[in-house]
Amino acid sequence: MTRRETRAVTVGGLRLGGEAPILVQSMTNTDTRDAEATLAQIRELAARGAALVRVSVYDQSCAEALRALVDQSPVPLVADIHFDPELAIASIENGVHKLRLNPGNIEKKADIERVVACAKTHGVPIRIGVNSGSLPRDLVERFGLTPAAMVKAALRHVAILERLGFFDIVLSLKASDVPLTVESCRALAKLSPYPQHLGVTEAGIQGMGNVKSAIGIGSLLLDGIGDTLRVSLSGSPLPEPKAGLDILRALGLLRDRLNVVSCPSCGRCTLDVAKIAGRIEAETQGENLPFTVAVMGCAVNGPGEARRADIGVAGGGANAVLFKNGRFVRAVPEERLAEELLAEIRLLSAQNKG
Amino acid sequence: MTRRETRAVTVGGLRLGGEAPILVQSMTNTDTRDAEATLAQIRELAARGAALVRVSVYDQSCAEALRALVDQSPVPLVADIHFDPELAIASIENGVHKLRLNPGNIEKKADIERVVACAKTHGVPIRIGVNSGSLPRDLVERFGLTPAAMVKAALRHVAILERLGFFDIVLSLKASDVPLTVESCRALAKLSPYPQHLGVTEAGIQGMGNVKSAIGIGSLLLDGIGDTLRVSLSGSPLPEPKAGLDILRALGLLRDRLNVVSCPSCGRCTLDVAKIAGRIEAETQGENLPFTVAVMGCAVNGPGEARRADIGVAGGGANAVLFKNGRFVRAVPEERLAEELLAEIRLLSAQNKG
Repeated sequence: MTRRETRAVTVGGLRLGGEAPILVQSMTNTDTRDAEATLAQIRELAARGAALVRVSVYDQSCAEALRALVDQSPVPLVADIHFDPELAIASIENGVHKLRLNPGNIEKKADIERVVACAKTHGVPIRIGVNSGSLPRDLVERFGLTPAAMVKAALRHVAILERLGFFDIVLSLKASDVPLTVESCRALAKLSPYPQHLGVTEAGIQGMGNVKSAIGIGSLLLDGIGDTLRVSLSGSPLPEPKAGLDILRALGLLRDRLNVVSCPSCGRCTLDVAKIAGRIEAETQGENLPFTVAVMGCAVNGPGEARRADIGVAGGGANAVLFKNGRFVRAVPEERLAEELLAEIRLLSAQNKG
Repeated sequence: MTRRETRAVTVGGLRLGGEAPILVQSMTNTDTRDAEATLAQIRELAARGAALVRVSVYDQSCAEALRALVDQSPVPLVADIHFDPELAIASIENGVHKLRLNPGNIEKKADIERVVACAKTHGVPIRIGVNSGSLPRDLVERFGLTPAAMVKAALRHVAILERLGFFDIVLSLKASDVPLTVESCRALAKLSPYPQHLGVTEAGIQGMGNVKSAIGIGSLLLDGIGDTLRVSLSGSPLPEPKAGLDILRALGLLRDRLNVVSCPSCGRCTLDVAKIAGRIEAETQGENLPFTVAVMGCAVNGPGEARRADIGVAGGGANAVLFKNGRFVRAVPEERLAEELLAEIRLLSAQNKG
């Protein structure tokens, strides 16, 4: 997994793209004009791991509310704007850190120039967001609903910004269809140096929405594509940050808690693997433990995985066998296994900090 | 998504590979010798969508239990065997439909020949399963824990079978590390025509185990790789079939129930999208409805997605707008939206059957 090189931008002091960590985003679903409710949701999203939060700005009252939101938000904010140059300018003047705006959807050339000049003055990057649900008609007629249409739609907007000497650009190509999302982003990555924001749009509610997002976002990250991402779920956005962080954790791109490797426990299994693994996950929840722990039930793959983990156990006889940093340490009876594993994890953590 | 061409095999009357539908597997975690408990679990896994179930065969009593299991199982069975040629032969003689066996792990050449001859006589395919936890030491020393080591391990076993004129082969390369799994299977697909069984091994318990599996299996399916798959979860295997089927559904590779496209409902949203989408998913659960339904909250991407779906609604004003087969049908007040959508779904289903 070699990460693609992209042209980094700065969003309210936060680096996005280049070699910066991949950022997880979310978006409020409160009425943006209700600054109190919106701020409460922004804080909750930030507490759950969102590094960047987007809010809809659909009228002047929303743009005005941004002043209070920006002042008090613990994370940089993105204004989501469609069509209206005045809302874009008001949002920037009220301190928003990034715009999500498609310049090609602003009617007058002079208006585009004013927005871009304002963004440049304030150091505010612009994300161009192309969505399968709102592709330009001429492109759909010529190319169908294809990666080519998605990419060309994005590059049209890019050309407008580049002609005005504006390069603090982030791009996203989102489709409700997973293969279309992935193929579009791959094609775009070959043509454009700008960071990509990943997501499967209209992915649905929790459950299938998570599966679609994990596949779409995850397979792009495996290709080294993606600098920021959002798992979009219908309903409350509160589950979104964890869903995004879990995708990074699954790929080893975020090592902020235990990575538990545990076997599916077939008929050959001599340990209650799920119980031990579940207890270890539960008792270390939220703790910063960047280690891999293996809980393996039998002697087939057990010793191999247990050796490779920072700490591992493999069942197989009356006692399980405990490994640490690839070396056999001692035999442990099953009933003491969870305790001893947890103790070893704490010890390793203390040693790492010491 | 063009599916890779593979050499199909037959497993107890079921086609695997070639153009056959992608099969979802699972594996029992009961004591195989307890035929009653094992059969109950096989039946439950089959009812939940497993097309093929694997059981551990680690002693002669297991192999003997197979007779009853095979007789009464609603789906073909796979015997999981390590090292022991007598268990392989006994399993085949007791009617098992497929072996999971690495021939290179059987010590004596004459024993390998006996097993292969027996499999050939009975038309039983062999899956070679290479696992990151049990790679041959010489390959790890030479190549490290890399796709090259994984692929070479598989090809060694393949060569043994091919030399004996045996080609009813299925291959799997599973690692607990998602990128290693994906890169290994991609490399293998370039070198070998045999069907691949996909899975991330030792993926952990539900939750992170699902995320790792969705990314690993999903990104290979996006490449057209994979003829059968298993989501391996620690603990009870009962959640495994649905997890596997959901991966196929997310990619449109299985169209057996409603595909609900619904927006993340930002501040711009005028409908309670999650409530409507959730109710439609809940009320159609388990029903064979191979349609896409879009529930969209606003006028930005709403009409586009709603038009593209078989049935779609888009909010935006006092009433939502209902589309069917890409055409505007009528305006519907929000409080009647779920009912009218469900009625249209039933109507479409009746028309499709009629």
